[in-house]
Amino acid sequence: MREVPRITADEAARLVRDGDVLMAGGFGMTGHPVHLLHALAATGVRDLTYIGNNVGEAGLGGGRLLRNGQIARAIGSYFTSNREAVAAAQSGAVQVRLLPQGTLAEAIRAGGAGLGGFYTPTAAGTVIAEGSDVRDIDGVPQLFVPALRANIAFVRAWRADGAGNLVYRMTEQNFNRAMATAADVVVAEVERIVPVGELAPEAIHTPGLYVDYLVEAHTTLEELGSSGSVAAAGQRVDDARLQMARRALRELRRGDVVNLGIGIPTLVADLIGPDDGIVLHTENGMLGVGPSPDEGGALDHPVNAGKIPVTALPGSSYFDSADSFAMIRGGHVDVAIMGALEVDAQANLANWAVPGQPLLGVGGAMDLATGARRLIVTMTHTGTGGAAKIVPACTLPLTARGVVDVLITDLAVFTFDDGRLTLVELMPGATLDEVRARTAASFVERLAR
Amino acid sequence: MREVPRITADEAARLVRDGDVLMAGGFGMTGHPVHLLHALAATGVRDLTYIGNNVGEAGLGGGRLLRNGQIARAIGSYFTSNREAVAAAQSGAVQVRLLPQGTLAEAIRAGGAGLGGFYTPTAAGTVIAEGSDVRDIDGVPQLFVPALRANIAFVRAWRADGAGNLVYRMTEQNFNRAMATAADVVVAEVERIVPVGELAPEAIHTPGLYVDYLVEAHTTLEELGSSGSVAAAGQRVDDARLQMARRALRELRRGDVVNLGIGIPTLVADLIGPDDGIVLHTENGMLGVGPSPDEGGALDHPVNAGKIPVTALPGSSYFDSADSFAMIRGGHVDVAIMGALEVDAQANLANWAVPGQPLLGVGGAMDLATGARRLIVTMTHTGTGGAAKIVPACTLPLTARGVVDVLITDLAVFTFDDGRLTLVELMPGATLDEVRARTAASFVERLAR
Repeated sequence: MREVPRITADEAARLVRDGDVLMAGGFGMTGHPVHLLHALAATGVRDLTYIGNNVGEAGLGGGRLLRNGQIARAIGSYFTSNREAVAAAQSGAVQVRLLPQGTLAEAIRAGGAGLGGFYTPTAAGTVIAEGSDVRDIDGVPQLFVPALRANIAFVRAWRADGAGNLVYRMTEQNFNRAMATAADVVVAEVERIVPVGELAPEAIHTPGLYVDYLVEAHTTLEELGSSGSVAAAGQRVDDARLQMARRALRELRRGDVVNLGIGIPTLVADLIGPDDGIVLHTENGMLGVGPSPDEGGALDHPVNAGKIPVTALPGSSYFDSADSFAMIRGGHVDVAIMGALEVDAQANLANWAVPGQPLLGVGGAMDLATGARRLIVTMTHTGTGGAAKIVPACTLPLTARGVVDVLITDLAVFTFDDGRLTLVELMPGATLDEVRARTAASFVERLAR
Repeated sequence: MREVPRITADEAARLVRDGDVLMAGGFGMTGHPVHLLHALAATGVRDLTYIGNNVGEAGLGGGRLLRNGQIARAIGSYFTSNREAVAAAQSGAVQVRLLPQGTLAEAIRAGGAGLGGFYTPTAAGTVIAEGSDVRDIDGVPQLFVPALRANIAFVRAWRADGAGNLVYRMTEQNFNRAMATAADVVVAEVERIVPVGELAPEAIHTPGLYVDYLVEAHTTLEELGSSGSVAAAGQRVDDARLQMARRALRELRRGDVVNLGIGIPTLVADLIGPDDGIVLHTENGMLGVGPSPDEGGALDHPVNAGKIPVTALPGSSYFDSADSFAMIRGGHVDVAIMGALEVDAQANLANWAVPGQPLLGVGGAMDLATGARRLIVTMTHTGTGGAAKIVPACTLPLTARGVVDVLITDLAVFTFDDGRLTLVELMPGATLDEVRARTAASFVERLAR
């Protein structure tokens, strides 16, 4: 068996050259190779192209490279979690390319798998698809996405053996597993290196042939940033939001695999009981999400897509981002519940682009909106100053076309069962006149007597 | 958590309809859902499209459906391991579509992942690519392969829990893992169902949401066919063949990841010592192949690509066919050693299509010839009746274009280092005149003094 060299984080940093394409694993700070990135931040290496879901947090992980001005270009799905990345993109200091989270993961996997690229329905008909080669495959518009590769990848794993085999912990697989296949040189930062033979051959996530160097480094709570403690995860709960969450819950059936977005949808999780037979999926790589833990943080628990520590129910499983979005895109998630900025009469959804802001964070919304078998939107009926959010045609950049099945607001419930926006229910305390006055799109009324 | 229904093999068989597309996991008889297929063979279901790497063995597994005339169409990579499948294809009783093994696995994965298809360099410039959309990506010709899906998939796993999570044993992942994602209905035949919570969430190969039904069924030695016992794996060893294997071994370097084809290349495995630092890869899903076991069969050991039981060295790892060919195609296998029928002056390789026979078995040869960083061919210098096998231009269907790096025969060693066929060495006992007389291609002579 091959013995993989063990080096220090500083030695790993010296493998990176000016102008390199660098992949950095992690979803937020979970599974992010903080020690390697901080060592790189201590060098003068610059003009990097950074590929990662996020650019760490402000001054932390990839965020430290960004603060130092070492990143010239970035390819990712959610820059908005680091305010300094947003500022750098706005000022033009960093040139940013945004991809849906699942498309990013799949493009990295394709790069590692020696494929030229692939066709995906995600983002078809949105601004992300502009300039892409789009073709109809089996009647579905799909866009061509070329594979992504890097000169060097920094990944983070939980255990390695001397042969370079890697095992990730909980939701730490995320982008690491695909990135470990997609670079000319791969450095794995691991919590602990164990003797060859100690890791079960069936349980290896990254076979040793992918790994060029190992760096042993212990992760501390501070390095996990905002995911470090569950205490940081408080959210505003008012009656109206809870009511929408309760109504959304009534749409779920026993056996459903359900993905919950951030905000109101997250509240649904707390309403689901252990006997409801509902399985929660989180796109960062977990099936069988349980309730929030009472204490602890990402050192002790998996995290959900909101980067908030959660628990794992018996029968849960972990997987990487490429496999997670394969599930979503492949129609294996029964229901997605997400928030929205606008929904229109054609069941189009806009929920990622804030008016007047540059397009810097799409995350998994496009993949979920397109891939989930059934899409439930929960949102306040109107926006700031009473502006209508249910409109004849979305004015904000779209997340996906013709995808909304059920729309739940603080005033009413609508469906698109026959393709037309249909009012089917008033929320407690709401009146028909009120709904009519605050809805800009025309709709069919089919209220139960 | 969701409880997955447990049914009998007969009940599973009744889920299949006339005209269905059926995926059946397994590589040869390893990880082949024999009980489900035999139950289906006992029904009158017909006009099936069968997707699988092989069609079992004669009368066994998928081979029983074939013998019964239940299969109308088959998509696979290696029909030649079942002589009845060959006969059925020749007579026109079964309409056959042949794909390289890695392309087959990737197309199934793409089907499960909701992708329309992908571009691969494998098979470009061969008869397999005829009629395909071919484009240059980064200067490499690549062909478009549409995704594959099925109405129903029969897979075989080692353990399941009540939530449908699956764990495969050793080399039994192969096609099962991708197939479990790519069908409308998925039935998993498993050796044993264990209580929820007993399988480690990080070690789940197939998350429970993919599995619709579980069938518990114990595999016996008889059901493993020719892989049942290592005793069936005897091979002809003569001095000339051993000499070629020894010469091939000298091309390998410490740390190399090496894939060995069937025949002379297999002999190389027995010559590699534990201290050589060479890691053997077998494309059916294993890294760290050790020597043949003294006894036992596929019930006790993993199998190699020749379907022969082997041992696992410390530090080995198992993976599925899609991941295995991702490794190969992605350039992560350093050296492939394989046999050939013809090699020509342009470094083209022909080694899969037997003259006068229909094209029914390509296996992993195209993926390996295209994807391995370095290709060493071992073959007898001439064929039947002294016919030249080193020719100006291959007359047999190609495996891949311009791929051969080193050619080792019983008479000589050639390289293509500067793009030209170059004689660099005579094998012991061979003369230059003899090599000249038996080589149809012109070559440069650069023998060491």
